[in-house]
Amino acid sequence: MTARRAPTHRKPVTLYLSAPEAARLIGAKGLPACLQGIADCIAADFLRWGDFDKSARVASYSPGGAIELMPIADDATYTFKYVNGHPGNTRLGLSTVMAFGVLADVATGTPRFLSELTLTTALRTAAMSALAARALARPDSRVMALIGNGAQSEFQALAFQHLVGIRELRLFDTDARATAKLTANLEGSGLAIVACISAAEAARGADIITTITADKRRATVLGADMVAPGTHINAVGGDCPGKTELEAAVLTLGPVFVEYTPQTRVEGEIQQMPADFPVTELWEVLAGRAAGRRTRDEITLFDSVGFALEDFSALRFMYGAARQLGMGTHIELVPDLDDPRDLFALLRPTLQRAPATACDDAAQAQPA
Amino acid sequence: MTARRAPTHRKPVTLYLSAPEAARLIGAKGLPACLQGIADCIAADFLRWGDFDKSARVASYSPGGAIELMPIADDATYTFKYVNGHPGNTRLGLSTVMAFGVLADVATGTPRFLSELTLTTALRTAAMSALAARALARPDSRVMALIGNGAQSEFQALAFQHLVGIRELRLFDTDARATAKLTANLEGSGLAIVACISAAEAARGADIITTITADKRRATVLGADMVAPGTHINAVGGDCPGKTELEAAVLTLGPVFVEYTPQTRVEGEIQQMPADFPVTELWEVLAGRAAGRRTRDEITLFDSVGFALEDFSALRFMYGAARQLGMGTHIELVPDLDDPRDLFALLRPTLQRAPATACDDAAQAQPA
Repeated sequence: MTARRAPTHRKPVTLYLSAPEAARLIGAKGLPACLQGIADCIAADFLRWGDFDKSARVASYSPGGAIELMPIADDATYTFKYVNGHPGNTRLGLSTVMAFGVLADVATGTPRFLSELTLTTALRTAAMSALAARALARPDSRVMALIGNGAQSEFQALAFQHLVGIRELRLFDTDARATAKLTANLEGSGLAIVACISAAEAARGADIITTITADKRRATVLGADMVAPGTHINAVGGDCPGKTELEAAVLTLGPVFVEYTPQTRVEGEIQQMPADFPVTELWEVLAGRAAGRRTRDEITLFDSVGFALEDFSALRFMYGAARQLGMGTHIELVPDLDDPRDLFALLRPTLQRAPATACDDAAQAQPA
Repeated sequence: MTARRAPTHRKPVTLYLSAPEAARLIGAKGLPACLQGIADCIAADFLRWGDFDKSARVASYSPGGAIELMPIADDATYTFKYVNGHPGNTRLGLSTVMAFGVLADVATGTPRFLSELTLTTALRTAAMSALAARALARPDSRVMALIGNGAQSEFQALAFQHLVGIRELRLFDTDARATAKLTANLEGSGLAIVACISAAEAARGADIITTITADKRRATVLGADMVAPGTHINAVGGDCPGKTELEAAVLTLGPVFVEYTPQTRVEGEIQQMPADFPVTELWEVLAGRAAGRRTRDEITLFDSVGFALEDFSALRFMYGAARQLGMGTHIELVPDLDDPRDLFALLRPTLQRAPATACDDAAQAQPA
């Protein structure tokens, strides 16, 4: 039982970061620094797009929503995210989107880091949006319309303030309480806030339009007539089959950029378009292999659905930050065995104390 | 910040069961009772095969091994398992197979139970093997050959003792230390043990032959000439592309039974056979829709690779047992929010204390 461990013995320890600990970590580093750090990780990972074993996420759909697994790996690191989308959850006091994920060693399969990703997903989605806007929006963009003022809206607002240079937000939500909540949360941020009575009013004069509503249906949050020349559209809310936010005509106003084409064709705004509708993958723009915005008057559109690589980048950032700050707790998610071929050793101490039952003569006689 | 919660508010609490706690749970209930309980859950779930949203597992292959996600759901419950397979891990002091999994509510996506599954997988694989043998082996089977005496062999031995009625084991492993470890672990179990010098010797006189070796290659652990009429073969070790244990001719000795055909054609022993090689799914036998063993002299073969439904059943059993015994700890894997549309509320208390940086003017001015 106390066999000497080989000098090569590695402990399969997993660092666990809970939701409250992730909030403390973000507080300790500062939210803008975390948004910037995650954006930097995403940019670095998108530039080595070819290194990743990519696949569309695996979704399990039910009448109330979807549960998805999003795996991805390079030669050294594997990650996956579990994430749900249940629009009816808020009526039960639960979040529409809840998530967690794991980062593991490809070489051994050891899970190294288990983290909440509900909060982290909001940061990474906003960081991704800001990164796309830096490549696609006019560099002098200062005014953003934010249509949909729910759980993720603060993160979009602050990412665009700190990473893109937005100074004024024009807000609209069908629920005025959501707009009031967002306005209160942004108080003191330095952002000028204008609450609007319609999406059309919000879009008026905006350099960037972000749509991030939660309804699970084909909605028309934004029509083509609301979009002025030179606008960048950051379409975030349409992200699963049957859930879109844009009038189809909006998709024909200018070039459409996506994360990972096979997934976006099923889940994004372009699910409304034919299968050969032309799109450009954002990594190609970041890598200088494809054009982003070509003229000041062009209307650009980022059809964002959220791709596993962004969670890979976010997990990598949070794992590094947690270790740097000494946050999180070590857990035995997988057993630490003296002899890995002797899994049964885990049970030996406990089986000696096991209750005997009629068909259970082995349990009491088990040797140490 | 302290908004009153709606009466419908549900806490998204996750019960966490670590590897050491799972061992204590199994000790408290007794290993035979756990094997029986998991087998009962698997049998009940296999009988409602049509209720499940099934898919082949999602694998990420690397030179050293594989990391897989195995999701499955019925109308009420979703589960997935993370599991790796890295044959070289034992040289590093790590297990070849490590696993964990989650059980979640389909209606809301809330993760209810996070559990180690390294130990639990060994139990569920053995319970599945025993369940198949009860349907396919001769009822008077008393002698089992156990070829491959690694981490899972004790669990196979004890499941077949307690659930099938095996009284004698004939052991073989290319590594004599593995056989010695298994023999020591089974001391006092009541099983008669015969250590053999070859697979052929182990197979001689056996009513059931279990192959459960770990080499990641096409091996021939068992040849057709070693299999006597009336034998049931429990082929467990061949479970991913390029990893098989049986001479192809063994597969033609009698009817072959599988868990989930699309997955087994890729991962099981039948990967050696044409795509239309006839197989019967075990659930059909359990449901009385297909014949199992038809004669005493027939050779039956269970080509086991491990299917997500078995982990669903095992997670269901462990979750119930942990709650019954008050074991495990409650963790905040996903945040518990007063207002689910106000995810940003998690950050408000922390951002007040955030360090100011040059580009970080929002962090210090954030209101409570």
